[in-house]
Amino acid sequence: MSLFAEDDLTCDAFLGGKLHLWQPRRGRGYRAGVDPVLLAASVEATAGQSVLELGCGVGAAVLCLGARVPGLALTGCELQPAYADLARRNGRDVLEVVEADLTDMPLHLRQRQFDHVLANPPYFDRAASVQSRDPGREAALGEATPLRQWVRMAAKRLKPKGQAHFIHRAERLPELLAALPHEMGSVEVLPLASRVGRLPELILLRARKNGRGAFRLHHSYAMHLGTRHEGDGKSYVPEIEAVLRSGAPLVFPTS
Amino acid sequence: MSLFAEDDLTCDAFLGGKLHLWQPRRGRGYRAGVDPVLLAASVEATAGQSVLELGCGVGAAVLCLGARVPGLALTGCELQPAYADLARRNGRDVLEVVEADLTDMPLHLRQRQFDHVLANPPYFDRAASVQSRDPGREAALGEATPLRQWVRMAAKRLKPKGQAHFIHRAERLPELLAALPHEMGSVEVLPLASRVGRLPELILLRARKNGRGAFRLHHSYAMHLGTRHEGDGKSYVPEIEAVLRSGAPLVFPTS
Repeated sequence: MSLFAEDDLTCDAFLGGKLHLWQPRRGRGYRAGVDPVLLAASVEATAGQSVLELGCGVGAAVLCLGARVPGLALTGCELQPAYADLARRNGRDVLEVVEADLTDMPLHLRQRQFDHVLANPPYFDRAASVQSRDPGREAALGEATPLRQWVRMAAKRLKPKGQAHFIHRAERLPELLAALPHEMGSVEVLPLASRVGRLPELILLRARKNGRGAFRLHHSYAMHLGTRHEGDGKSYVPEIEAVLRSGAPLVFPTS
Repeated sequence: MSLFAEDDLTCDAFLGGKLHLWQPRRGRGYRAGVDPVLLAASVEATAGQSVLELGCGVGAAVLCLGARVPGLALTGCELQPAYADLARRNGRDVLEVVEADLTDMPLHLRQRQFDHVLANPPYFDRAASVQSRDPGREAALGEATPLRQWVRMAAKRLKPKGQAHFIHRAERLPELLAALPHEMGSVEVLPLASRVGRLPELILLRARKNGRGAFRLHHSYAMHLGTRHEGDGKSYVPEIEAVLRSGAPLVFPTS
């Protein structure tokens, strides 16, 4: 796929305007939703650390993290030239974009290890679902690279004690866990539900290379107020509102 | 280990007196707590079905299930003669007790398949924890048989479409999931927390042989009222109170 035409792009505000991202117009490609913002908010990074996002698309997650935590060295790896091009435009001088297949990274990337690796892998296993007609959107949503490869590549690119961070559909949790190499420990899962009492649809999973902590399954986090959809879709709980509109961190429970 | 002396036993009421169980006195062996009662309450069995409990101890889980659902054919498999003896006494004419290692069942059991198999396997991996000084309690709490064997034997003893049911510590969820053979599907996990907002310590996991449903991770269930311990330890939420004191079912969420 060639680059996007300028007419096919929009420039959208994230984190209440702290960040602006060029991305394909609705119907022209994969647009970043709430999920990469939540993923970025969950990463406890500190100034001076290095961060790699696998399959970074236009750079939403890694740039949201960079907008919240100053002084990070940010790298994104993206297979599709059109999205890598937008990531470069969005990241200007703060994001290093490597245009590559995550299972076949160039040597200069394979020789480096990071404090944090994050990924929002494609949600749908194409063996069991219907393809998108848009090839770029299909590559972002469908699963050309198996989930276990995302997990293994993330682990490989981590420093000792470095942390991997994933957001995925809750129903893929068994595969995510099974894919974690033996050296990944201190695994924590935070289920995200749309509302109190609803089945969590998403999970945030983090794991530490050489971590020795026991697996922790946290109680699920309800993202919207109330127990049913109120129509305008804007009724986020205050903590999520703060994540989305002010760039606040999303803190894992401590008990 | 030989049988218990009568002086070492107590006869305790379960389910508000619907069931009485002989078990070793505190300090003399493994005593059934709330966990097998919760496990039994979560099994959606119907009259005419067959049920096998692996490692049934004195029969707490399988007999709680029998007390709630009439017309079940109940079987328990227990390795330790002293506990198998109590299970026979507790089960009288409603529980078939097979004294055997679950990894080496007698042929007459290996030739049968059940609608439900339940297990409350030992909670502690002895490679990573301290042994109990009581050998019977140690066999019940410590893990002589690896968790994956419990899961595999449960799957083997199920009819097509039969359901396996486990209660275990939440931190063992990755191992439980990894141990499920490929033919087990429609996996559902219900995390159980002591209170709202606390880390779930236990999970109920169920899976169906030949099930094709997606993995479902439910929001966690808070067992006690309030957000902190109020001293008397009796402050169960009404649904759990009904499970423990009246033999009510513990229903998995449907959304």
